[in-house]
Amino acid sequence: MSRVFPIILSGGAGTRLWPLSRAARPKQLLRLCSERTMIQDTVLRLPGGEPPILICNEEHRFLVAEQMQEIGVAANAIVLEPVGRNTGPAAILASLLVERIDPEGIILLLPSDHLIANVPAFHAAVAKAVAAARGGLIVTFGITPSGPHTGYGYIRSGEALVQVADGYKIERFIEKPDLDAAESLLKQGGVYWNSGMFVFRARTLLDEAKRIAPGLRPPVEQALQLGRRDADFLRLDQDAFRRAESISIDHAIMEHTQLAAVVPADIGWNDIGSWSALFEAGSPDERGNVARGDVILHGATNCFVRAEGTLVAVVGLEGAIVVATKDAVLVTHRRHSQDVKAIVERLKREGRGEV
Amino acid sequence: MSRVFPIILSGGAGTRLWPLSRAARPKQLLRLCSERTMIQDTVLRLPGGEPPILICNEEHRFLVAEQMQEIGVAANAIVLEPVGRNTGPAAILASLLVERIDPEGIILLLPSDHLIANVPAFHAAVAKAVAAARGGLIVTFGITPSGPHTGYGYIRSGEALVQVADGYKIERFIEKPDLDAAESLLKQGGVYWNSGMFVFRARTLLDEAKRIAPGLRPPVEQALQLGRRDADFLRLDQDAFRRAESISIDHAIMEHTQLAAVVPADIGWNDIGSWSALFEAGSPDERGNVARGDVILHGATNCFVRAEGTLVAVVGLEGAIVVATKDAVLVTHRRHSQDVKAIVERLKREGRGEV
Repeated sequence: MSRVFPIILSGGAGTRLWPLSRAARPKQLLRLCSERTMIQDTVLRLPGGEPPILICNEEHRFLVAEQMQEIGVAANAIVLEPVGRNTGPAAILASLLVERIDPEGIILLLPSDHLIANVPAFHAAVAKAVAAARGGLIVTFGITPSGPHTGYGYIRSGEALVQVADGYKIERFIEKPDLDAAESLLKQGGVYWNSGMFVFRARTLLDEAKRIAPGLRPPVEQALQLGRRDADFLRLDQDAFRRAESISIDHAIMEHTQLAAVVPADIGWNDIGSWSALFEAGSPDERGNVARGDVILHGATNCFVRAEGTLVAVVGLEGAIVVATKDAVLVTHRRHSQDVKAIVERLKREGRGEV
Repeated sequence: MSRVFPIILSGGAGTRLWPLSRAARPKQLLRLCSERTMIQDTVLRLPGGEPPILICNEEHRFLVAEQMQEIGVAANAIVLEPVGRNTGPAAILASLLVERIDPEGIILLLPSDHLIANVPAFHAAVAKAVAAARGGLIVTFGITPSGPHTGYGYIRSGEALVQVADGYKIERFIEKPDLDAAESLLKQGGVYWNSGMFVFRARTLLDEAKRIAPGLRPPVEQALQLGRRDADFLRLDQDAFRRAESISIDHAIMEHTQLAAVVPADIGWNDIGSWSALFEAGSPDERGNVARGDVILHGATNCFVRAEGTLVAVVGLEGAIVVATKDAVLVTHRRHSQDVKAIVERLKREGRGEV
């Protein structure tokens, strides 16, 4: 029986969670949804199998290693990307690593910055996806949409799989729609949010990449060959990895392969893509407020307040988002939480230290 | 010709401007409306006359002295109250001090935490009030109401003075009204806001106090006699001053004397009694925002934002008030700025350092 290798991708920047998330401490390394960081929760909710392989930005290596130590998890490897190259090269990298260990090895590729509230349902979905992957498919998890969200890509399911019940070939991928298009998609049915989680046999992916995106593997393979062990880390060669195309696994492989399949997954998934999303994932008090840290509320309703290292008092507001750290404060409304990106971009342009 | 002695009262706590105002640094000692503190602006806008006498809380003596030094003003005296006893005892104290220097001396008694935007009009009003005070009246400045404000006491004017044009005897004082009562007062006309600024001959006040409130003078006089010079300060005797009744000059004298007069004063007055008041006193940008400090606005309108020692970003809000310091952040709406008191009271009850 082929073994299952969890690969945890820790590459995101999470600018929409500023000022808590920063370049030096992105979303997955923060204690956002629980007393543990998102990457810790991601590792702890794995369905067993092999020890995880972590792929992270070189800058974050000590934080990642510390956080694994804190929860007593010995990673199979911590691979350091000298630069970010999106999920396409990371999937190739994962496949090359796993194929060395087990030529039949199956990969469970997971972002480290998503919330999954229903762990038993997640484990059931993984089991189903692994069965489909053993049958030679490249499987993604399709999240049952809770509304016409415009922040996600969508997947349209096609014919039913023979390998597993309630699994489907993917008919097509749909880029982030506008609101009208999203509403129309939901009406049609048979659509899912693209969760960015994948299950596939390493060999299957490498074979498909060879056929569909032949330029993807060589620089990654070279980066691995020229890379070196450095204490607990596997450090990729910088020059080689830089030559890899920055492309997502969706654009590089999934949208072109005939092997793409989807397993519907109603698992309490939330990508925590904004402060509003974190509000929705939180436990509101009797006035609908979600607060954490040193917070005083007076006449506030449906507010999200997060205080780190400072006191925050909110008086008589509805639906406000307040996030305060020692050097920066964000105040907005739940309606506008996507616009936080604009602030981060401005700070970057101005070369400021608060990003 | 009798001389005019400005007496500046620096006793207030200003809890409604938390988190910027604190017990250790109340409103008058903050740079709220200009690059100078409110007490500095108060002294600098004096119409000349004798050097000012400052009456302040013992705790604030060094801040007050430093701030006077900063603007190159040598005070006639800085008198330290060991405890706050409201404006009644302070008016007696001022009168005793001035009478020693000039038995005919006239006092211009001013709070240190009000904004006066129209300085020439203020000087004209003072000149008129001084003329009336020379005629033996105890004069207050009546602010032309800009609306049915419920946060101020009102003054109803009576018969015209003979001493000065557009000056009136006071018919009666009206405690802070509710909104209906305030609207009805405005309709009736002939009413003014009670500004808490007074002009009187020291001797007049002492004579009236002897008749109306005979218990007021003895403990204050004793506190002065038993007090001592300490460097630049005149330190009142604590035990004696503690025995003085804590009462306003309005309640102790003005509401009972036949000598009360009002000089209407359209001088751009604002008591900066809340963050909303400071918003109204500020210079809005083209989107109606008043911001100071390290502030980024994105889609915000009619907001008041104040950042001290931290960055504040406001995204897509209308009418919000955000005040951030290094250890505390207030977020509210202009409608609710009076409720800030509730936060300060709660912090006090909890014995917290942020008050």
